[in-house]
Amino acid sequence: MENRIITISREYGSGGRAIGRKLADKLGIHCYDAELIQRIVEKSGYPADYVKEKGEDAEGGGLSMFLVDRRLGPTHQDTLWKIQSQVISELADKESCVIVGRCADYILQARADCLTVFIHAGFDKRVKRIINEYGEPEEKAYKRLKDRDKRRMAYYNYYTDKKWGNAENYHVCLDSGALGIDKCVEVLAQLY
Amino acid sequence: MENRIITISREYGSGGRAIGRKLADKLGIHCYDAELIQRIVEKSGYPADYVKEKGEDAEGGGLSMFLVDRRLGPTHQDTLWKIQSQVISELADKESCVIVGRCADYILQARADCLTVFIHAGFDKRVKRIINEYGEPEEKAYKRLKDRDKRRMAYYNYYTDKKWGNAENYHVCLDSGALGIDKCVEVLAQLY
Repeated sequence: MENRIITISREYGSGGRAIGRKLADKLGIHCYDAELIQRIVEKSGYPADYVKEKGEDAEGGGLSMFLVDRRLGPTHQDTLWKIQSQVISELADKESCVIVGRCADYILQARADCLTVFIHAGFDKRVKRIINEYGEPEEKAYKRLKDRDKRRMAYYNYYTDKKWGNAENYHVCLDSGALGIDKCVEVLAQLY
Repeated sequence: MENRIITISREYGSGGRAIGRKLADKLGIHCYDAELIQRIVEKSGYPADYVKEKGEDAEGGGLSMFLVDRRLGPTHQDTLWKIQSQVISELADKESCVIVGRCADYILQARADCLTVFIHAGFDKRVKRIINEYGEPEEKAYKRLKDRDKRRMAYYNYYTDKKWGNAENYHVCLDSGALGIDKCVEVLAQLY
């Protein structure tokens, strides 16, 4: 049988990762999330911390990404993007799976066998979720969320030619705050 | 039983109206589309053609909507918006139903019993659909689509405080071009 891939982009705190894991369990396929980073580490030779830091949640996103001097060639982050794209494409060739984050929707957009998903939720619901999940004080959770939203948007908008959070980028967008995690999993399993 | 409403915003040519009708049939509830205009006509006293023209596909959207002189009070289109909002709210109070277009997602956003949906599709697929549905020559269909996209976006962005096509505005966004009309109906019926 042909491989079938589900990519899940998600707002920070929306439960997109949890949805990816539950969905993969339900479908009996693998969910690549942290393991994605491990594979990129192996392929790139960069330290795990660096790969993590320079991913979709890279600090100093936004303008600085555009302003950095590339006259002498690509940055390490650019190289990392290239390797990440290779790793994700290889995974999609190898097996049916769920891939969470890292612009997999964009990297695999040409594939007919790929269902691209975006999970989002209202800001307050995401703050609540972070407080419950990570036990952070509200003020800190609020600040972190604002920060992560900015970083992911900057990373996505820079490395893809699309706009973060635009419905047209995805086959399915779901509000996990309104629908709930389990309902999202159910719908995506039905669409698979 | 409490009323439950589904609002369907849709890109022109995406089949959103067809999905709304099929979904309403499947759920055994009413689908308000053209009838919405009839009710607005009755309530406003404006001619049907005017109500149709000054709706979400109003000509001369974009800047002109902002530039029109409102110092002497609201425009007829503003009045129409107000009446349209009343009609949609009354429908939602009265019965479970599907409401297609006219920013119903925004007008009913405060209601807990409302599922807001956005239907979109790739430009080429929408062009094909218009050619098949309305038998238009490709060049004309292409031009009309570009024009309608601009109008709906301008109308939505002006009368709501949101951005047209942004996933966060809706509980569910579906690419009808990739998933197909029937699959969209199936998923929405499951979510209802």
